[in-house]
Amino acid sequence: MGEFDLIQRYFQHALKPAGVVLGNGDDAALLAPAPGNQLAVSTDMLVEGRHFLSTVQPQALGHKALAVNLSDLAAMGAKPLAFTLALALPRVDADWLAGFSAGLLALADQHGCALVGGDTTAGPLNICITVMGEVPAQQALRRQAAQVDDDVYVSGQLGEARLALEVFRGRIAVAEAVWAQARRRLEWPQPRVGLGLAVRGLAHACADVSDGLLGDLTHILEASGVSVEVDLERLMQSALVSAPVQSLPPAVALPWVLAGGDDYELVFTAPPAARTAIEHASRQSATPVTRIGRVRPWVPGAARVRLLQADGSDYPLPSGVALRGFDHFA
Amino acid sequence: MGEFDLIQRYFQHALKPAGVVLGNGDDAALLAPAPGNQLAVSTDMLVEGRHFLSTVQPQALGHKALAVNLSDLAAMGAKPLAFTLALALPRVDADWLAGFSAGLLALADQHGCALVGGDTTAGPLNICITVMGEVPAQQALRRQAAQVDDDVYVSGQLGEARLALEVFRGRIAVAEAVWAQARRRLEWPQPRVGLGLAVRGLAHACADVSDGLLGDLTHILEASGVSVEVDLERLMQSALVSAPVQSLPPAVALPWVLAGGDDYELVFTAPPAARTAIEHASRQSATPVTRIGRVRPWVPGAARVRLLQADGSDYPLPSGVALRGFDHFA
Repeated sequence: MGEFDLIQRYFQHALKPAGVVLGNGDDAALLAPAPGNQLAVSTDMLVEGRHFLSTVQPQALGHKALAVNLSDLAAMGAKPLAFTLALALPRVDADWLAGFSAGLLALADQHGCALVGGDTTAGPLNICITVMGEVPAQQALRRQAAQVDDDVYVSGQLGEARLALEVFRGRIAVAEAVWAQARRRLEWPQPRVGLGLAVRGLAHACADVSDGLLGDLTHILEASGVSVEVDLERLMQSALVSAPVQSLPPAVALPWVLAGGDDYELVFTAPPAARTAIEHASRQSATPVTRIGRVRPWVPGAARVRLLQADGSDYPLPSGVALRGFDHFA
Repeated sequence: MGEFDLIQRYFQHALKPAGVVLGNGDDAALLAPAPGNQLAVSTDMLVEGRHFLSTVQPQALGHKALAVNLSDLAAMGAKPLAFTLALALPRVDADWLAGFSAGLLALADQHGCALVGGDTTAGPLNICITVMGEVPAQQALRRQAAQVDDDVYVSGQLGEARLALEVFRGRIAVAEAVWAQARRRLEWPQPRVGLGLAVRGLAHACADVSDGLLGDLTHILEASGVSVEVDLERLMQSALVSAPVQSLPPAVALPWVLAGGDDYELVFTAPPAARTAIEHASRQSATPVTRIGRVRPWVPGAARVRLLQADGSDYPLPSGVALRGFDHFA
C-alpha cells in the first residue's frame, strides 16, 4: 500500500462542518470561522516511549492523540472545528492503521471536528496533531484572567492516570476493577470540551491539567500575578479523588493528585457570585467539578501555592511535586 | 536547559501581525483572519534521513522546514499569517537550536508569519509545522479549476535540487560553482509566496511542485478532469532549466526536470487572454515564470500528460518518471 492509498483508505473523513470550506486533497485546507469568531489553534506531538507505550491499542492511541489536543481547545472555551494529522510510521501496518484511524475519527465525529489535511511519511512513530476551534471574539478563556477572591475549580478526577502508569511500570499492584478503570483514564481521556463551552462567560481563567494540577494551575497564577490557597484535606476527600486513590497512603496519593499528569481535566477560576451558575454548567455538560480553593494576592518572593489543612495551617508541598509541570528535557 | 527555558530562549517570536490576537503561552493561540478572509491551513512533517540529511546546517533546516509549508500557502494564493512548530529532539544542543531557530525565524519574519505555538519533546529528530494564511473568500487557487485551452506555467527553475541530491549521493560530480548553486536550491528553497498572491484572480488552478513537476501537475489534471500537452523541447531549452542541467544528457536531465522533487516552485494554469497580466505578475513578484504547454480535454483511459517534440510528435515518458509523485511508502 502506498502513501496515497493509505490516506484514501484510512484518513478520509466524511464529516464537514459549516466552517470547513475545503478539506484535504489540495495544497491546503480552507476554514471559515463563523462571523465574529476567532480561531483557537493548538499543536501536540506524541512520541512512542514518551507519551505512550508501544503496547497501547491503536484505537486508544488514535483517540488519545486527538483528545490531548481537544483538551487544549476545551481550556480556551473553543468549539472544535478541524484538525490536521501528521504521521511518521516505521512501516505500513494495515491493522494498526485501521485501529488508529477508527479511534481517532470516532472522537473527531463525537466533537464535530473534521480531519482536513496532514502529512504521512516513513520514520520513527510520531503523531503530530494541530487542532483548530472557534471562539467568539473576546470570549476565550485565558490564563491571565484570574482575579483575587475567585474560587478555583477542577473537573472530573485526578490521579487515576498516574495510578495506571505506576501499575504499567510494575511499581504497584491493584485489584482488577481498579486497574481497568485507571487504565481507561490513562488511555481514553475524555476532553472536557462541553464544560469549557459551558463555563465561557462565567469562568475567569482556565487551563487544562495535562502536566499535573499544581504545575498547570501555576501557569494561571503566574500569568495572572496571583497566588492560591488549596484546601488540601477537603480536596483529597472530595469526588475529585477516586476511592482507590483515596485509600492509598498520603505520601503516595498526594503527588499523584497534585502532580500526576495525563489527567486532561480543566482547572479554572470564577467569582464566588458565579457558584450557582458553575453548578448549572457542570450539570449541563455532565461534567463534575470540585471547588478546591481560592485565589489570593501575590507578592514577589511569596509562594504561588499554599496547601491548607482543615485547621487552616500550612501543609508542606510534598517532595517530588514540581510547580513547573512535566519537563521533557529536565 | 529545560523545556520551558528552551522555548523561552529559542522560540519567542517578536512578530505579531494584526491577525494574531494571541501568540504562544496559553493553551492555544488565537487568530482573527481579516474580515472576508478564510484561513488556509497546511501541515508538513520532516524526518531526518527522509527529508534532510543529518549533515545539513541547522540554519538551512530551520529555513527549509518553514519554506516547504509556505510553498503550500503560495500554491493557494494565501498570505502567510502564523505557524505552529512541534519539535522532537534527541538531545538539547544549544548550537543546533540557535541555528535552527535563526533560520526558521528569519524566513518567518521575511513573510510576516508569526510563530504562535507548538510543542517540544524528547524523541528521534522530527519537525512538524502547521502553517496558516489568509485568503479572501472564493479567491483561493484550487487544483480543480484548470480549464481546457488554459496555458500552463511553471515558476523559477526545476531540477537543480535533484542535481544537488545526486552529488550528495556520490552519483555525479560537478564544478564547484554549479554545486554551490544547486546545494543552495536544495537546502534554501524560496517559497513563491509573492507569485501566488500576484496571480490570484488571474490563474485558474495552481499547485506547488514539491514531489516533481509531472506528479504535482497530474494532481491538477485529475482534480480538473483534463489533460495537458507539454512542449518538451521548448521547456528543456527554456529558462526553467539552468545551464548545468541543460548540459547533461537528456536521459539524466529529463527525469530530474520532470520528476526531480524538492523544487518548491508553482505550476499553474491561466487563460491565454491573461498572458500579459501573468507577465506583469511575474515581474511584480520578481519571480520568473515559463509557459510550458496547454490544457486539453481528457477522456477516460487517455494519458493525462503528452510530451510533445518540436515537430508536434509524441516524446515517450522517460522511464523512472512517476505521474503520482514521490511516495514515502512505495
